[in-house]
Amino acid sequence: MAAVLAGVDIGGTKISVVIADESGHVLGRGRRKSKPERGFAGVMARVQETVDEACMNAGVLRSALSAVGVGAPSPILPDGTAVSAVNMGWTNVPLTEALSELLGLPTFAENDCNVGTFGEYTFAGRSGTLVGLFMGTGLGGGIVKNGVIQSGDHFLAGEIGHMTIVPDGRPCGCGKLGCLEAYASKTGLAYEFKQAIWLEKKASVLPDLVDEGGLDNVKSSLLRRAWDERDDVTRAALKRAARYIGIAAGNLITLLGPSAVVLGGGVMDALGDELLPLVRKSAEEHAFPAASYRSTAIELASLGDDAVALGAVAYARSRMA
Amino acid sequence: MAAVLAGVDIGGTKISVVIADESGHVLGRGRRKSKPERGFAGVMARVQETVDEACMNAGVLRSALSAVGVGAPSPILPDGTAVSAVNMGWTNVPLTEALSELLGLPTFAENDCNVGTFGEYTFAGRSGTLVGLFMGTGLGGGIVKNGVIQSGDHFLAGEIGHMTIVPDGRPCGCGKLGCLEAYASKTGLAYEFKQAIWLEKKASVLPDLVDEGGLDNVKSSLLRRAWDERDDVTRAALKRAARYIGIAAGNLITLLGPSAVVLGGGVMDALGDELLPLVRKSAEEHAFPAASYRSTAIELASLGDDAVALGAVAYARSRMA
Repeated sequence: MAAVLAGVDIGGTKISVVIADESGHVLGRGRRKSKPERGFAGVMARVQETVDEACMNAGVLRSALSAVGVGAPSPILPDGTAVSAVNMGWTNVPLTEALSELLGLPTFAENDCNVGTFGEYTFAGRSGTLVGLFMGTGLGGGIVKNGVIQSGDHFLAGEIGHMTIVPDGRPCGCGKLGCLEAYASKTGLAYEFKQAIWLEKKASVLPDLVDEGGLDNVKSSLLRRAWDERDDVTRAALKRAARYIGIAAGNLITLLGPSAVVLGGGVMDALGDELLPLVRKSAEEHAFPAASYRSTAIELASLGDDAVALGAVAYARSRMA
Repeated sequence: MAAVLAGVDIGGTKISVVIADESGHVLGRGRRKSKPERGFAGVMARVQETVDEACMNAGVLRSALSAVGVGAPSPILPDGTAVSAVNMGWTNVPLTEALSELLGLPTFAENDCNVGTFGEYTFAGRSGTLVGLFMGTGLGGGIVKNGVIQSGDHFLAGEIGHMTIVPDGRPCGCGKLGCLEAYASKTGLAYEFKQAIWLEKKASVLPDLVDEGGLDNVKSSLLRRAWDERDDVTRAALKRAARYIGIAAGNLITLLGPSAVVLGGGVMDALGDELLPLVRKSAEEHAFPAASYRSTAIELASLGDDAVALGAVAYARSRMA
């Protein structure tokens, strides 16, 4: 019988689990709020519950799983330590150890955007070097080369969202200035929305569309709606974000010459058809040499919302091999 | 008997050759103007003469050499084609084939800054990932990981000098805007010197120091002299260049997490003691996360003027192995 694995996506808001076979075919799902305020042990207990829920939905026993893959919002050391997850409030927590004990299964954890890129690499049949850029609340990225996640000599790198893209630019949540994430993420969009609507008093449908979160974290589906209603403020902010993603993609092509750059995350899942041509145009303007740009495919990611959870399945499978 | 090799550095102005043993001990040298106006065949003939001159000085027969390594200012494909060398006027020339026929020896060509970085990796006993940044007339770079030059899936990448460092910034000789090279190279310094001296009418010792080349290509030794004379224009331009190199180094640390970044090239050879602390400070400000910066050594290159020629020796040796 083919192996069945669990893939866990631990985020600041929610935990998502898929149960899948080796080819990424999903057999069942689970989802819970992550409630990071309950501390590391509290979140680990919720991961266990979510895995068990997904197993129930898939009709498999947890003990029948071959392995568990985990994507978490932190650099992860080879021993499974999550070094720093700001949204979770974690510093140097033993993520792999805690989960493998709780679940009684071989467990393999990696950075969420790294496994997201790894999933695209595996299930979309990529080869060579693949760069993943995921635009959601933040801007995460990953680099996979010849089937191996590239996180640098000290397992802390691949932080594409924190490249300085504008020297002395906008403040980023990380404390630096001018990071890509400060321009090309929902956080960056919020900055532009407030500037346009509050300071420059521009007309926009956004204030009427958004609910409790206000302009700080507009749902991707609402961004889509505002775009489709030809809202100038929304379109200008998204076009600007696409341009900066293109600059980053251009730099990554100049430096790394990947075979492909894939664009994912909530904003891209909702608006990729509109944004992809803009990202390509900007990447072409900024990549060197031109031949390197022409050799790199810039495409939308294929796994959508499941990118991290399915990527975690692919990662766990690769570690079992 | 240990192998003896030739290392050839082909530049827009001069050809330099070293004859060296496997540990990089130099036995003899040759040097000639490259005269690119004589065309590809003309330059190849001059390379042959320079190799023969270096063999004479080393007291070895050309036929006794094990191999020839070549660093040239172009991306080089695996078949030895030099894709595009703007300073030489070459497009898709069969560099390796031409030289191996002329010299009657196994010949291995690579991009000059790639072999420069490879030489630092080999002879300075580096491991893991090494990034090399060479500041001279231009700003060249290379990435070596676990002893392998990283030039991307299509052998065109690693062009660190053409990362966009300032969106919509200064024009670069490559036709793009805001490349690192437009800020951190002698070309970038010339821009600042002219701005300060011609437009802003600032006082400077530079116009009296420079000879025929004017402000466009001030010799590194004269930059050193002007720095030592506390020339404000010179110091401000060099400090600014060091800051931009630090931004690039910070981005490379954020993305690739190398064990070391080494700084070489004529300007660094002359002024590295003054510029290194400034580059480090700027890299620390711009790298993410902080732990990644602390895990990366930022140091001056050790091979000086011989970086490319000795790097070519190391590269040829590695290809023979």
